[in-house]
Amino acid sequence: MTDQSNDAPHKVGGASRRDFLRTAGLAAGGAALGATGARANTPDPLITEVQPYASFTGEAVDATPYGMPIHFEEHVVRRNVEWLTADPISSINFTPIHALEGTITPQGCAFERHHSGAIEMSKQEYRLMINGLVDRPLVFTFADLMRLPRESRVAFCECAANSGMEWGGAQLNGAQFTHGMIHNMEYIGVPLRVLLEEAGVQPEGKWIFVEGHDASSNGRSIPLEKAMDDCLVAFYANGEALRMEHGYPVRLIVPGWEGNMWVKWLRRIGVYDQAVEAREETSKYTDLLADGTARKWTWEMDAKSVVTSPSPQAPASHGPGPMVITGLAWSGRGKITRVDVSMDGGVNWVEARIAGDAQSMALTRFYVDHVWDGKPMLLQSRAVDETGYVQPTKDQLRAVRGLQSVYHNNGIQTWHVNENGEAENVEVS
Amino acid sequence: MTDQSNDAPHKVGGASRRDFLRTAGLAAGGAALGATGARANTPDPLITEVQPYASFTGEAVDATPYGMPIHFEEHVVRRNVEWLTADPISSINFTPIHALEGTITPQGCAFERHHSGAIEMSKQEYRLMINGLVDRPLVFTFADLMRLPRESRVAFCECAANSGMEWGGAQLNGAQFTHGMIHNMEYIGVPLRVLLEEAGVQPEGKWIFVEGHDASSNGRSIPLEKAMDDCLVAFYANGEALRMEHGYPVRLIVPGWEGNMWVKWLRRIGVYDQAVEAREETSKYTDLLADGTARKWTWEMDAKSVVTSPSPQAPASHGPGPMVITGLAWSGRGKITRVDVSMDGGVNWVEARIAGDAQSMALTRFYVDHVWDGKPMLLQSRAVDETGYVQPTKDQLRAVRGLQSVYHNNGIQTWHVNENGEAENVEVS
Repeated sequence: MTDQSNDAPHKVGGASRRDFLRTAGLAAGGAALGATGARANTPDPLITEVQPYASFTGEAVDATPYGMPIHFEEHVVRRNVEWLTADPISSINFTPIHALEGTITPQGCAFERHHSGAIEMSKQEYRLMINGLVDRPLVFTFADLMRLPRESRVAFCECAANSGMEWGGAQLNGAQFTHGMIHNMEYIGVPLRVLLEEAGVQPEGKWIFVEGHDASSNGRSIPLEKAMDDCLVAFYANGEALRMEHGYPVRLIVPGWEGNMWVKWLRRIGVYDQAVEAREETSKYTDLLADGTARKWTWEMDAKSVVTSPSPQAPASHGPGPMVITGLAWSGRGKITRVDVSMDGGVNWVEARIAGDAQSMALTRFYVDHVWDGKPMLLQSRAVDETGYVQPTKDQLRAVRGLQSVYHNNGIQTWHVNENGEAENVEVS
Repeated sequence: MTDQSNDAPHKVGGASRRDFLRTAGLAAGGAALGATGARANTPDPLITEVQPYASFTGEAVDATPYGMPIHFEEHVVRRNVEWLTADPISSINFTPIHALEGTITPQGCAFERHHSGAIEMSKQEYRLMINGLVDRPLVFTFADLMRLPRESRVAFCECAANSGMEWGGAQLNGAQFTHGMIHNMEYIGVPLRVLLEEAGVQPEGKWIFVEGHDASSNGRSIPLEKAMDDCLVAFYANGEALRMEHGYPVRLIVPGWEGNMWVKWLRRIGVYDQAVEAREETSKYTDLLADGTARKWTWEMDAKSVVTSPSPQAPASHGPGPMVITGLAWSGRGKITRVDVSMDGGVNWVEARIAGDAQSMALTRFYVDHVWDGKPMLLQSRAVDETGYVQPTKDQLRAVRGLQSVYHNNGIQTWHVNENGEAENVEVS
């Protein structure tokens, strides 16, 4: 029993949708209902297997003052790609975006990148220095920061190397690995502007250089305009303190810009008249082009999107009929204004439904309420942001950047979905 | 060194704020700076205690596929009040709102109420039945629900008994205990309307009765209009699956209405031509008045607010000078449009700063950027919502409801803050 109109997803509330449950055999119902229905003619084998009440564990929740996910969800974790780095001391792990929903990423399974492990530093030990071309060099304790005016900001943090393994072609088989160097959290902290105003930036000061307390220090230069605009010295994420691996107790938030600039365990903000040109902005985080030159200071994360389900780790095992196609879209230049989805590798597109109000420089959730005909699909999504920028194809990117750029691969992702609903990472020309 | 103008909080960006760091002695700076500053005349004892780089743990984060908060934050947990219920099987624990920030409540320390423990039920076992006055009684598996169109909703869930111990006077010494039966999460699920439309509500159907899979079943009647409006059958919260204690795998979201109606481990939705008048809406969750009658069906959570810091568990130990006064406001009738704060027990009020855009029927964060003169305060907050409703004083409430109502105590909370910054739960006339 398949729905006749396969081309367009059924919209919520449309008359045609009333059919889809019945025609699709979804929800044991109608003439087939067992149990208490008046039409209980056909015994439903599923109902007889279910106990009227689930096992009562008796476990007092009060025994878990800080809870963890139920064990049935133990597959929803950060994962790493062992061969990606030489040593776990400097490595990265990936958000299980194929299994998450909405826009908030739980801190517990949010990706992180560390260059020299994660450090343990108490709030009492913590210090933040501002020096360089300022009237008043300052050293803040954590207690000092807690007394300054706070602001709130929801923002995505994406590593510039997200999808970096895919420059040469379809490589890793899962959205977690192709696109999982990203998370989205609600941050609370003190605007960096407030701290810089307290120190008093001198007229010659045009750049800041930020460093962390970890051994790598991860120094990055940021233009003063950005520092004074929307950067946040944050010490809460998703309601609670930052996790150790996310920079406890303080990290820098640089909305829309490369994740590497969001220095963790923030130690120093130096004001200078020029960029420092440190390792992480010369040897790394520059984009090598085909002619041997490199793009530098490619701070803004370009508009990007990915279908998180169906995807290789999230097959659509239910067969033909109603299918939820969902994914994430984001842009470092502002709000996502539209997401399109294609089932045929970019030939035809339908506009997806955006959940809630798209927020600037934050993850945006999209849906297509699809009725699947059971035939193979080449599933893609394409984001458009408020500047009018349209997410390019991977080939369009390669034509401009070559294959060795490592960073800023925001090309359209394709999943081949077969008749069993299993998905695979593929490339289409 | 105290700031002269003590009455009004200093606004962010105002010229007067430039003084507050220097006059307050905040941030070792100016002439007192040690370390690398040019004015390194006075040795700063704190700086010599700090190692230039924090201890390197070497711990590979990859070893924590699902992380927990750092041990320094182990005080940020759910707590319960032992004497509150006869047995932990049916009890409640409280969100540590005094230590959280922003608007998102991490699932791990989010309050919950259980009437017969928490149950463990897998997605495979899970069933949701819709029956009663419907054309087609249905039984959904979890896999069925995953195929239906989803929506997203950020909403606060407040137990109607929140602050219930305070009807007779100031009782519990901490915002976690006086106001902690509340949390705020981003939910993803299927609109209840979609499921009811599939079943086909008959014209006689005016109410639904919802029950859970747990032994208590927690049955509640909900008018059909609300069910068809914004109720959500949810299976994601803050990006991941619901925690076991929050109703895994599925709970009902009833935006703005009593927490008890947000049935966990959702089992059945029965459509009826009248309310069932079950235990949880007659014996419990009704508000006993002074004349012996009781208010029934007091579903909407009234506008309410509380200062979370300073508060008894979050003293302002820093002395006079800059002080962040912060708290939460919410309304079951829509958006919070204003929050006022008083430092003198309700005689004078200043308007607080709301963080971000206030969302309808969701927690809203407010701030006052205060400069404290070090003198005792009677700190209060007062919420106003979009309907024009103004949060009342406790005495105003008592005059109408008496002292035995148990539920719906949304009166203004007062903290007495002494000269040491220590706060205490008090009442003012």
